Amino acid sequence: MADVISELTNIGKIINPYLAYYLKKDASDEFLDVILHQVNTGGKRIRPALTLLCCEIAGGKLEKAIPAAVAVELIHNYSLIIDDIIDRGEIRRGKPTTRKLYGDTMALLAGLHYREAVINAVNDCMNSLKIHEILSKAIKELIDGERLDVLFEQAGRYNEYIIKHRRKYVSLSEYLDMISKKTAALIKASCIVGGLVANAPQEVIFALEKFGENIGLAFQIIDDLLDIFGESKVFGKQIGKDIIEHKLGNIIVILALEELEGNDKEKLLEILRKEKIKDEDLKTAMALIRKTNAKDKALRMAREYAFQAVKALEKLPQCNAKEKLIKLANFIIERQF
Amino acid sequence: MADVISELTNIGKIINPYLAYYLKKDASDEFLDVILHQVNTGGKRIRPALTLLCCEIAGGKLEKAIPAAVAVELIHNYSLIIDDIIDRGEIRRGKPTTRKLYGDTMALLAGLHYREAVINAVNDCMNSLKIHEILSKAIKELIDGERLDVLFEQAGRYNEYIIKHRRKYVSLSEYLDMISKKTAALIKASCIVGGLVANAPQEVIFALEKFGENIGLAFQIIDDLLDIFGESKVFGKQIGKDIIEHKLGNIIVILALEELEGNDKEKLLEILRKEKIKDEDLKTAMALIRKTNAKDKALRMAREYAFQAVKALEKLPQCNAKEKLIKLANFIIERQF
Repeated sequence: MADVISELTNIGKIINPYLAYYLKKDASDEFLDVILHQVNTGGKRIRPALTLLCCEIAGGKLEKAIPAAVAVELIHNYSLIIDDIIDRGEIRRGKPTTRKLYGDTMALLAGLHYREAVINAVNDCMNSLKIHEILSKAIKELIDGERLDVLFEQAGRYNEYIIKHRRKYVSLSEYLDMISKKTAALIKASCIVGGLVANAPQEVIFALEKFGENIGLAFQIIDDLLDIFGESKVFGKQIGKDIIEHKLGNIIVILALEELEGNDKEKLLEILRKEKIKDEDLKTAMALIRKTNAKDKALRMAREYAFQAVKALEKLPQCNAKEKLIKLANFIIERQF
Repeated sequence: MADVISELTNIGKIINPYLAYYLKKDASDEFLDVILHQVNTGGKRIRPALTLLCCEIAGGKLEKAIPAAVAVELIHNYSLIIDDIIDRGEIRRGKPTTRKLYGDTMALLAGLHYREAVINAVNDCMNSLKIHEILSKAIKELIDGERLDVLFEQAGRYNEYIIKHRRKYVSLSEYLDMISKKTAALIKASCIVGGLVANAPQEVIFALEKFGENIGLAFQIIDDLLDIFGESKVFGKQIGKDIIEHKLGNIIVILALEELEGNDKEKLLEILRKEKIKDEDLKTAMALIRKTNAKDKALRMAREYAFQAVKALEKLPQCNAKEKLIKLANFIIERQF
């Protein structure tokens, strides 16, 4: 665990100056504090780590993957700024969000600037046209995943269109489709572009893609799990945030609802559909969820995806980067367990 | 005038199916009505017309410029969706805005999807890497222009950061900097990319750039003028909207304030700074503005920029496309005068 964290810290040290470099390009001095706030709040830099390691596995030099790694981290931060606007988020990574500090309008404009910084980073990559295409597709999926996540909410938005199109029930496969877009798409793309900058052959790209897809699904399932059962002081965010935000699109809620019956099931749905979810409601919801095996089932699912991810790398030659990548996969699954 | 309009209509017929084609790529069926609404509200398609004509002037075939023309029109519509979110716009081109119909969240997600559709269109262009760079730079300018436009407002937003950074006074040169970003940057880029897809030599690109920059400035000045003096039924938008929105960043307001003195000047500023600008206030503001030569001066400025634009084309060989481009420049200036 400790060596993965120190590896990520090292990758952060490599990547952070480039994040700032690309974000500052063509930006007004006066706007810089707004623009830089999001990347300065930190983050684990897991996506650029994936890009760099996938490049190395594919036989490329780490340096060649830096602009691509920067691009995926910029996209991730772009999505966080936008996500906070949509969800009115005030705290992330224990710090005020860009919108909380500067307001929605400035946060939105800063977010859009991130997308443009990505263009410059990608233009500095080998195989840049293909990477533009891959990353653009991933962002479209991110957008659609976010759309579904919003439509999976059970209350809390006062918009006619959303109320009309809201899902009353979400199946496990609809949930998986949503997270494969909202989370796995960019993680998968982070792996693919690592292979592309190394000019890897198609079968290596396929292996990295499969690894990324599976580790991405595992990642979101663990994220959902931590949202409900994590410790707030570790994550710098409110526990049960998804429930407070009326989200049906959390694996724990999905699995709990699958298992609960009669009044219990009704009660949990009723809480999610309350306009304002109070502390007491959250406690009741948590008690209902704890009655089920949702946590264990989710953990098993995540581990199965992680297993599939590692399996996808089987045919690639053993090397230092591959070992690191497998450790990173385990880290994603085992954080806080 | 009539032949320019029929030319633009023809260009619309060429471009519109491609707008839909690129927007539909990788989009969920369920999301299409939200995504397509903005381009379906119409628009004059001036930017793609500039791209196509600049390609022809530079000796390229019109067909080669289609993806680039689509890209610039998509960027324009992207900026309109975002602009309406920021300004809480309800009507545009006489029709409800995307946010009015579907709410801010869905409009925002649809807007972001436009940016990705641009990537696909640009990837289909000749010299695509250069075009990615040029358009990305133009979008950064658009973002910064929008930021300045917001900071030039005198009231109406309840955000600490904006209130603190608001400009109490805007000089003519600050205004020109703002519109060169908010409007001229994309119009200039529309001309440049037309040259790029024709593989034009550097001096032709320079001429097209200078043409675009100047015609872009003229365009925004006329837009500002029409906002204050236009006829609402012709433009499908509210007259004096900029005043109601507390904007100092309108050439008429800038020039009127330059000319007004003492109480009159104070009064106009006082109205712009009122939290709620009533019909009566708008009438008073209009009367103050009409006391000045702001309208004539603005019109003269726009004509001078248009003159400089046409002059930039001097050294390019006489051809059908050049004639059309000059007519288009005149159309931009003379619409409704």
